[in-house]
Amino acid sequence: MVDLPPKETQFIDWYLAVVEAADLSDKRYPVKGMNVWTRYGMRARRNLDAVLVREIEATGSEAVEFPALIPQTEFAKEKDHIKGFDAQVYWVTRGGLSELDVPLVLRPTSETAMYPIFALWVRSHQDLPLTVYQIVNTFRYETKTTRPFVRIREIHFFEEHTCQLDEAGATERVRSNLAAFAKMATAFALPYVALRRPEWDKFAGAYYSVAFDTPVGASRTLQIGSVHHYRENFSVPYGIRYEAADGSAKFAHQTTFGLSERLLGAIVAVHGDQKGAVFPSSIAPYEVVVVPIPSADAPDVPERAAAEVASRLRAAGRRVFLDEGPDRPGAKYFRWELRGVPLRLDVGRREAEAGTATAVDRYGRKGPVALASLAADVARRLEEFDRTLAERARAAFTASFARASTLDELAGSTKIRVVAWCGQEECGHRIEAALDGALLGTPEEALPIDAGPLDRCVACGRPDGLRWALAAHPL
Amino acid sequence: MVDLPPKETQFIDWYLAVVEAADLSDKRYPVKGMNVWTRYGMRARRNLDAVLVREIEATGSEAVEFPALIPQTEFAKEKDHIKGFDAQVYWVTRGGLSELDVPLVLRPTSETAMYPIFALWVRSHQDLPLTVYQIVNTFRYETKTTRPFVRIREIHFFEEHTCQLDEAGATERVRSNLAAFAKMATAFALPYVALRRPEWDKFAGAYYSVAFDTPVGASRTLQIGSVHHYRENFSVPYGIRYEAADGSAKFAHQTTFGLSERLLGAIVAVHGDQKGAVFPSSIAPYEVVVVPIPSADAPDVPERAAAEVASRLRAAGRRVFLDEGPDRPGAKYFRWELRGVPLRLDVGRREAEAGTATAVDRYGRKGPVALASLAADVARRLEEFDRTLAERARAAFTASFARASTLDELAGSTKIRVVAWCGQEECGHRIEAALDGALLGTPEEALPIDAGPLDRCVACGRPDGLRWALAAHPL
Repeated sequence: MVDLPPKETQFIDWYLAVVEAADLSDKRYPVKGMNVWTRYGMRARRNLDAVLVREIEATGSEAVEFPALIPQTEFAKEKDHIKGFDAQVYWVTRGGLSELDVPLVLRPTSETAMYPIFALWVRSHQDLPLTVYQIVNTFRYETKTTRPFVRIREIHFFEEHTCQLDEAGATERVRSNLAAFAKMATAFALPYVALRRPEWDKFAGAYYSVAFDTPVGASRTLQIGSVHHYRENFSVPYGIRYEAADGSAKFAHQTTFGLSERLLGAIVAVHGDQKGAVFPSSIAPYEVVVVPIPSADAPDVPERAAAEVASRLRAAGRRVFLDEGPDRPGAKYFRWELRGVPLRLDVGRREAEAGTATAVDRYGRKGPVALASLAADVARRLEEFDRTLAERARAAFTASFARASTLDELAGSTKIRVVAWCGQEECGHRIEAALDGALLGTPEEALPIDAGPLDRCVACGRPDGLRWALAAHPL
Repeated sequence: MVDLPPKETQFIDWYLAVVEAADLSDKRYPVKGMNVWTRYGMRARRNLDAVLVREIEATGSEAVEFPALIPQTEFAKEKDHIKGFDAQVYWVTRGGLSELDVPLVLRPTSETAMYPIFALWVRSHQDLPLTVYQIVNTFRYETKTTRPFVRIREIHFFEEHTCQLDEAGATERVRSNLAAFAKMATAFALPYVALRRPEWDKFAGAYYSVAFDTPVGASRTLQIGSVHHYRENFSVPYGIRYEAADGSAKFAHQTTFGLSERLLGAIVAVHGDQKGAVFPSSIAPYEVVVVPIPSADAPDVPERAAAEVASRLRAAGRRVFLDEGPDRPGAKYFRWELRGVPLRLDVGRREAEAGTATAVDRYGRKGPVALASLAADVARRLEEFDRTLAERARAAFTASFARASTLDELAGSTKIRVVAWCGQEECGHRIEAALDGALLGTPEEALPIDAGPLDRCVACGRPDGLRWALAAHPL
């Protein structure tokens, strides 16, 4: 039996304990920060990836896959980019028994793998837009403390890369990515803010970066994705040039959209509670677990009835686990709560004889379902569960923000702070110093709370060039 | 326009030309043997993987994913295994700006990544069987000439690894894998022979290996998968030990089952013809391409009707490409033939007005389909196409084999040779020398042809210990 540390006061310990107790990842692999995807964790990942694929393909993006190894010569072509990644890449220097002539980088991200080939694929304006994505693993030689799904050395990664006719086309693609992410986040019931990162925190090589941050308690946030506008910053060094309709030669404008297994970490962090993980049914490894309740008089009856319930639900397209193991029911309840299954169906002798099952959702709400209307009853209960989960997450999200009108209010804050900012880097750094945290950026959409009047910069007090900004402690 | 080399007489050139012209893989990536999965190639791969996942999960196997990097210390634990791979692995020796204390191998296969963790997962007989698979990329520092899908340095790979109670359990899993592969191969319409490899050609560290070979013209074969029985060869060095029901400590017996993107290479090689690739509808990137035939009088009419046809077929669950591009119809026909789409639907003004389309399958069979019965008509034509494709492949398969009753008959053979073999290694090598090829092994199932009496060893002439064996030129 596992006693989870309190989520409220020992968040990181709670998070690590839930990931382990729910059997989502095994971190005993002999390379620190490279974890094993367990059978249970892989089921969640597969469901998560399916949402990403569905939403990105709905916008016309197509899957590709580029090699994992990038020659040093290609990797070094965009100067800011290599500066951003130099200290955190793995190098392959030997093949078989000999040294390689050109060392190879294990991709930390795929700009430098893809763009030499994009330069071959893009010849004419008719080849544009080029809109492709891949789901692959990336590698970072992480020197900070690693944590499952959140900060690791081999990362399950989604990356879209596009080439557009011009800057306006690229801006339009950024908008389209923001809209696609909104749909993904809805499927995961993850509230977030989309923030344009300050200049000093944009992606290495980007013109600008928009990142998605989700609150994970107190003043903490977790970045769960990002979209970048590159203008011509990569297309010039990599020679991604095309013949325009008027016959002139132009460089493509580019965008990227990145997501990772952090989304799974965020789902655990945001929805989990003192009993363990809580999965929205969209990505739950199993939506329903069926537990036969042993009966001394008629041992086979509950087992047969439970198997029938499981098989009918599978036929209706549900992901179901039939827990026929030797443990007593209490141990099973405990385990499936830890693992975050949305709905449990208990089948005892009484239920078996009455043609029913007792449904208990992950929030403890209980009631009968009839075999005759099983699929519909289960669908209704899962919808109700998902609605409650989304409402709870939304309420916690809104409660995470508070305005700070003075730098003093930032110190020791237990909220994510909304501040008025003049946009000057110096003031940004003063805000960061006062919070001992980070200026996340300026919202691309409406503020998550009504913050009052945008009157003067929280740092310098000036009324010019004002915008809202958020300041927090990123995990 | 592409003129393919003759498949019959210049097979390798033909194969390389088809892969390139069908746009399945881009080999211009700046690391030799690491190729780019194009949009079109990825669609085929995704459909192929879906078949593998469906069939392996039907046998109870569950997905996992282990890290790509393996510490040298773990990699070196099984002596035969490391000897088999030592000369063909990539080594990661640097992280960021510093040398790693322990170099890491980029997995060439995952025994040595998985088994230290299996030793933690397997404690009791109740944890067995452990039956997991992963689909990941593996890496081999290949020194021979590389060829897309067939011999490459980064390989899209399927690997199942299991732990069983005892040798009988492992033997049973080998049988189950053979049966699962039979279903996969049926989906791809790939005829093959399952052969127990001779001792000198088994997998590094295996007790025995069964491999699947498919004929690809003349006396050539391509290995498209393998199943291995490891007995305790890995469980002992990796300490995969469990407490048996009687309380004693035992080592697990293990099996593996490996497949790769070679399957896609085999599909191209076996089904392709002088006009290009030919895909069975199960894995065709698109099952149907719809081509509007321009009409000078009413330019919009065919386009609208073609879009309607495409949209109805998509609603019926078909993978459809609507080719609205500016090329003339002849160029489109040519392109989709090269790319191997099973069925084309042409929609001109006449068809649009009559509520029909003209279907042409990849073998050139032509006929009308009615909009009113579109889904059913298309389904029927695709079934007919798949049936023909499978029959052709089966006929070519059977014609690939011939018995050789003397060593002289082996020299310069243009068939895969069926020979009687006494089982002695010395005779095996004499057979290989006579053919200047390989003894593939002994069939696990019936011989593909009636070969006459099993009378005496083709090499030594003795009548003892006889079995059938196949000898060929593996690609």
